[in-house]
Amino acid sequence: MDPYMIQMSSKGNLSSILDVHVNVGGRSSVPGKMKGRKARWSVRPSDMAKKTFNPIRAIVDNMKVKPNPNKTMISLSIGDPTVFGNLPTDPEVTQAMKDALDSGKYNGYAPSIGFLSSREEIASYYHCPEAPLEAKDVILTSGCSQAIDLCLAVLANPGQNILVPRPGFSLYKTLAESMGIEVKLYNLLPEKSWEIDLKQLEYLIDEKTACLIVNNPSNPCGSVFSKRHLQKILAVAARQCVPILADEIYGDMVFSDCKYEPLATLSTDVPILSCGGLAKRWLVPGWRLGWILIHDRRDIFGNEIRDGLVKLSQRILGPCTIVQGALKSILCRTPGEFYHNTLSFLKSNADLCYGALAAIPGLRPVRPSGAMYLMVGIEMEHFPEFENDVEFTERLVAEQSVHCLPATCFEYPNFIRVVITVPEVMMLEACSRIQEFCEQHYHCAEGSQEECDK
Amino acid sequence: MDPYMIQMSSKGNLSSILDVHVNVGGRSSVPGKMKGRKARWSVRPSDMAKKTFNPIRAIVDNMKVKPNPNKTMISLSIGDPTVFGNLPTDPEVTQAMKDALDSGKYNGYAPSIGFLSSREEIASYYHCPEAPLEAKDVILTSGCSQAIDLCLAVLANPGQNILVPRPGFSLYKTLAESMGIEVKLYNLLPEKSWEIDLKQLEYLIDEKTACLIVNNPSNPCGSVFSKRHLQKILAVAARQCVPILADEIYGDMVFSDCKYEPLATLSTDVPILSCGGLAKRWLVPGWRLGWILIHDRRDIFGNEIRDGLVKLSQRILGPCTIVQGALKSILCRTPGEFYHNTLSFLKSNADLCYGALAAIPGLRPVRPSGAMYLMVGIEMEHFPEFENDVEFTERLVAEQSVHCLPATCFEYPNFIRVVITVPEVMMLEACSRIQEFCEQHYHCAEGSQEECDK
Ligand SMILES: Cc1ncc(COP(=O)(O)O)c(C=O)c1O
Ligand SMILES: Cc1ncc(COP(=O)(O)O)c(C=O)c1O
Repeated sequence: MDPYMIQMSSKGNLSSILDVHVNVGGRSSVPGKMKGRKARWSVRPSDMAKKTFNPIRAIVDNMKVKPNPNKTMISLSIGDPTVFGNLPTDPEVTQAMKDALDSGKYNGYAPSIGFLSSREEIASYYHCPEAPLEAKDVILTSGCSQAIDLCLAVLANPGQNILVPRPGFSLYKTLAESMGIEVKLYNLLPEKSWEIDLKQLEYLIDEKTACLIVNNPSNPCGSVFSKRHLQKILAVAARQCVPILADEIYGDMVFSDCKYEPLATLSTDVPILSCGGLAKRWLVPGWRLGWILIHDRRDIFGNEIRDGLVKLSQRILGPCTIVQGALKSILCRTPGEFYHNTLSFLKSNADLCYGALAAIPGLRPVRPSGAMYLMVGIEMEHFPEFENDVEFTERLVAEQSVHCLPATCFEYPNFIRVVITVPEVMMLEACSRIQEFCEQHYHCAEGSQEECDK
Repeated sequence: MDPYMIQMSSKGNLSSILDVHVNVGGRSSVPGKMKGRKARWSVRPSDMAKKTFNPIRAIVDNMKVKPNPNKTMISLSIGDPTVFGNLPTDPEVTQAMKDALDSGKYNGYAPSIGFLSSREEIASYYHCPEAPLEAKDVILTSGCSQAIDLCLAVLANPGQNILVPRPGFSLYKTLAESMGIEVKLYNLLPEKSWEIDLKQLEYLIDEKTACLIVNNPSNPCGSVFSKRHLQKILAVAARQCVPILADEIYGDMVFSDCKYEPLATLSTDVPILSCGGLAKRWLVPGWRLGWILIHDRRDIFGNEIRDGLVKLSQRILGPCTIVQGALKSILCRTPGEFYHNTLSFLKSNADLCYGALAAIPGLRPVRPSGAMYLMVGIEMEHFPEFENDVEFTERLVAEQSVHCLPATCFEYPNFIRVVITVPEVMMLEACSRIQEFCEQHYHCAEGSQEECDK
């Protein structure tokens, strides 16, 4: 008798065991030919892969222009503060990683939502009386991107919709559409320092709305919402019973003349998933450590949403454990000076850039208050050679070797986004090249003579 | 005039701009009330979150037994070689990380599929004449888990099916079912050292089969397929035109008496996505660095599958850049001795454990040839007190404080999986406790007297 058949005669589970070894084995003498097997190779990507579409990549990869060989390239297009080497992370942050490595304690698997101790650190760092947090309210993720991915995946079913800012970070749409979730764009108003058009926002909400994404401080705008405006946003959410995904990856990155208010500190009733991470404030985007903070004081998410997040986190098992192990020191030991220096550098560059571009006929920069970006309106009627912002930025690369992102990438045509993390000399050089470019291509618009006199 | 309305009169994109600022703004004076807005809070997790189900968690979390307070706990249940501290990674591996940190070059974003240089290192490390690889054939991922996730996501649509080994690693099913992909289980045969029941495998294939998962060396079996058997698997795939996802995370982790053959080296025509990572061989599972090697010499995947993988990788932007930066040194500087020592330790523990358990009436261990596990059949008819493997392992914890995983976790009832990475003394102690346990509960089965005499 087959030695492994002995167990098969045991009580319990008999039918399933028979199914394994007998039924199928019997049937299997009939080869697969009888069914509709594939006659030849045909391997096509899934619909989801096809639907996963990053507009930035699509637009930028199609910009097949070469920079001007006589001018060194200045790239103001990537939201990565590390590329120029002028904004290194703090030595304490690097040291924290080395200590985590040396301890030998952080090489194994963490729970899929992160080590308890690391979640405790995040909880106590972001805890405040108006928005209390415990370890159970924190989920560590592979970057803020995965935080957003998990939040959308847990909150929305295919066929539902989410509300996304326009202009806004393109990943929201990329993720949502890959999951079959519809994206409804609400407007940010440049004339109001990019505040939300609240009426339109409320109008867009329907019974299929699964969540509202609020990004503050904003990419691409560099805007920071006031407390009053945030309260109004919360009022809409409360009235319409729509939970909020607060993308606060640029949290605390605001210039000295303005205050950052974490959304959850202003509400007791709207359930909020706040997404953040080390990427921007600690200047280590490559390390891929992000988090979700669950604010649910009215128990509206309840255990079900929490469990859903935990289950979804088990797909890929969380962020690198060395970074998790370093979290405590990163949060506690990084000197206040480090944050301060980053922000005063950004503010100074923002002022510089805003001032220079505001003086250029045909451009209308909007002054930023935080994050790392500045949006610039292009009065397209004064640049009739260019069809749109994409062509404008293409030609700017070709002639001046300055690369900005056309805001079409953010669903906002006729603007460009400028990254302000570059060294000051480059910022100035870029602005003067943009000036030269605009001067060369500026045309008086018909019937608006006064504009041209300015 | 509103300063930001100037752009609106430009040519091009007019309608989309109007849509932004005029149409919707106009309509928005009608509040949302008229539509079916939500009257009260109701936030439920998505179907995907509900469908994301990890059977190990479900089974283990339901095992609400306490270990015997008089015996220290010995956990043989987690596939994490680092938990006992006896298998540290090599100092060169840690040093490589520190060097990457000190260089300051790896803090920024990498391309979502990984740095070109890191992909080149993986390509040249795994390149061989029979299965050539270049950087373009490598995608870096957040652990082997994400590698598997991306492969399934690119190959299969909801409603299609994949073929998964039984017993097998539970993540395949977790991921597939969360995406609405059907799982068909093919059998591994314990009496044939866990070779695949090839007839049954072929029988299961139908026109909706998107891929075949082959896990070699195997979790939970510790088995290693021979070249001949792998060739037969490839023949089925070739005949049925089904691409293969080769989960080779335990690649090269085979004992001295046996040889590991990467599946792709044995085929020129079957398209293969081979998934691997640093987790097991380099003993750093927490670091979350995995990869996909694309083998497609007949151009069956073509650019479409490659592009699909790239697009999907953009959702969360790849693994930690410090680990990516350390890859070259990890691959080139880790001494051969390190791999050798790990394997001889594992082999010695495997022999020890197999020998001890094979001598216990009622147990039928299957000798492993690689990886970090050993499967043990339980002759349930000799343990009539226990309903199944789950109850067997529960009682083993309660009485002997030894924790193994019931193989029901791997869809294979009446077996248990033993992890063999524990220190030798613990391995021996665990085996002797299992022996005591079995002796206490062993009953002669009715009508099989000869069995009891042995
Ligand atoms: C608004 C916003 N959210 C999220 C992210 C993603 O952050 P991470 O790199 O941590 O995934 C970015 C990155 O640029 C961002 O600008
Ligand atoms: C067979 C198998 N595949 C994949 C994995 C996942 O590996 P990683 O930790 O790199 O995600 C494991 C982990 O235990 C495994 O056993």
